[in-house]
Amino acid sequence: MKEFEHGGNIHAMAKSLGVRIENIVDFSANINPLGLPESLKKALIDRIHVIEHYPDPEYKDLKKAIGEYHGLKEQYITVGNGATEIIYKMITGLQPRKSLILAPTFSEYEKALDKIGCEVKYYYLREEKGFQIDEGFLRALEEDIDLVVLCNPNNPTGQLVERKILRQILDNCRENRIGLMMDEAFIDFVSVQEEETMIHYIEDYKRLYIIRALTKFFALPGLRLGYGITAHRDLLDKIEAEAEPWSINSYAALAGEIVLKDKSYIQKSRSWIEQEQKRFYAELEKIDQIKVYAPKANYILFQLLDKEKEIQELLMKKNILIRSCSNYKNLENNYYRVAIKDYKANNTFITALKEILNES
Amino acid sequence: MKEFEHGGNIHAMAKSLGVRIENIVDFSANINPLGLPESLKKALIDRIHVIEHYPDPEYKDLKKAIGEYHGLKEQYITVGNGATEIIYKMITGLQPRKSLILAPTFSEYEKALDKIGCEVKYYYLREEKGFQIDEGFLRALEEDIDLVVLCNPNNPTGQLVERKILRQILDNCRENRIGLMMDEAFIDFVSVQEEETMIHYIEDYKRLYIIRALTKFFALPGLRLGYGITAHRDLLDKIEAEAEPWSINSYAALAGEIVLKDKSYIQKSRSWIEQEQKRFYAELEKIDQIKVYAPKANYILFQLLDKEKEIQELLMKKNILIRSCSNYKNLENNYYRVAIKDYKANNTFITALKEILNES
Repeated sequence: MKEFEHGGNIHAMAKSLGVRIENIVDFSANINPLGLPESLKKALIDRIHVIEHYPDPEYKDLKKAIGEYHGLKEQYITVGNGATEIIYKMITGLQPRKSLILAPTFSEYEKALDKIGCEVKYYYLREEKGFQIDEGFLRALEEDIDLVVLCNPNNPTGQLVERKILRQILDNCRENRIGLMMDEAFIDFVSVQEEETMIHYIEDYKRLYIIRALTKFFALPGLRLGYGITAHRDLLDKIEAEAEPWSINSYAALAGEIVLKDKSYIQKSRSWIEQEQKRFYAELEKIDQIKVYAPKANYILFQLLDKEKEIQELLMKKNILIRSCSNYKNLENNYYRVAIKDYKANNTFITALKEILNES
Repeated sequence: MKEFEHGGNIHAMAKSLGVRIENIVDFSANINPLGLPESLKKALIDRIHVIEHYPDPEYKDLKKAIGEYHGLKEQYITVGNGATEIIYKMITGLQPRKSLILAPTFSEYEKALDKIGCEVKYYYLREEKGFQIDEGFLRALEEDIDLVVLCNPNNPTGQLVERKILRQILDNCRENRIGLMMDEAFIDFVSVQEEETMIHYIEDYKRLYIIRALTKFFALPGLRLGYGITAHRDLLDKIEAEAEPWSINSYAALAGEIVLKDKSYIQKSRSWIEQEQKRFYAELEKIDQIKVYAPKANYILFQLLDKEKEIQELLMKKNILIRSCSNYKNLENNYYRVAIKDYKANNTFITALKEILNES
């Protein structure tokens, strides 16, 4: 179904089932179930009139807020209408000729690379290794590659690259002058994120490109806000020079300035993910008919052992939307991804899934 | 000043003067002074949570609302993150090799054409004709042009193409298979807009491309929302296939659905422009030191007869921002554009301008 190319298309589902969006429990989009931060709701209402002016074309306050959050110089930051815009702009700006991406991984890298006519090579992650990157990846780097795109944690597998291997990948890229793009859109959900992020290395290697999103962790996918971090000044200048003006709307810019300072929301979200990730995973693990891959972020990949069963449709009838992974390269039809939501919603899912699996 | 490349950059001005944005009277951005429609304020507050979901990637409800507003089939409509995004996408999709644009006109056409390596020819509008297009334009079409971009009413001159000439341009384009892009971003402010818009011709000529914006008329430049209308199905398919997902955020999509139905706001805005356009123009006309070009939309171009006087800076000191037209091709340093605002603001401007001009 074209409508379900990405997760989160509850609009199409609501229409096809004739139900209201509010009645759908959406496990297909990996969004923080705590919902909009209260600080942001207040700011949006208090400052509803910000849209009567054009946004600042340079987004200075937004970049300042991001810089302060990461303890980074603002000059390394570029902002975009969602992380996806940054991916496209960086790839278009870099114009790689031959790239290496994972299979499976987020589909927009390949789309952006195809668009500029870049040859795309795949590193096929192996199910028997739990879809983790191993040292074989370093050998794949030895070819004539000029850009590697890694999603860390990877979407949809939920796996992190082991730190030691990641360091070797970075060294290898530096030696061979290969660009390394790290999409860290979900890293805010990782418990030891400060040790996992590659942000600390940007001054060490100019061709390291970090992609981050505010969409998922701060529950504002409808607002569209992402950013890129790199010390590759020429690329940033090129992106700025070619940018269409005001691509980020005023509410999204305001949101970035507000939410990154909301320590209480960030703390509450960390407690939730720490507890609920373990518990939900453990509950799913108990179900014999599926194989579950231990999550590092806020979503879980599982394999349905009975390849014939159409659980997505059966769950839809119970108003539950999950992400079929059948359109990911290197995943068969029997793989599914579910978001980790709150205690109650997760239990609803588990109950529904068990019911379906136990029906003959 | 790079910061003032477009109108409306009150952020840079507020910073450079050390004043609050609220204290600046902004005549540089051509925005309806009635401000946000009440219907939209209410909808944004009532439905603040729409951003917790991804937008509908197909924006069906938004396209439906636009289609109903114009009495058009939805299949002719494409929506974008501001009209500027549509301009870029259409030009990128069409890949013209040689194009004709006006001088002066809105700067983004040339930028978009340059980006794809298209040769750009200019039709120089003549001051002595009040910057109006004449039949000479038809002769300019006879060359090896494959895309014409017209802004109607033109920005910054405020002039409409005479209907008879526009019809001839359309016929000429059709005969020679030249694409005709009509940017009607300001046509909602024109009193007889239904007779001036080219929307009615889209089924007659497949290579006619209309650009529209909701930004200006509904006072939401920070929200970013525009759309394109054409019967060129292949182009629309190409744009949709290459689109990055969710380029319009949920609040902008919601706004489109709400404001186009707000008949009372539309009516009030029409009364305001009808009265205030005449009055403000008449008042400016009385000032000896400037030459004013009769406006058709919600902004006025004028020429300062004393070429040495720096009125933009002098007005800035009075917290008034106007648009210098010095970075428009074919306009000298002594041209300025001002928005038509409400009665009180317009009087503030007139008083301030007279004071400055009468200082020795």
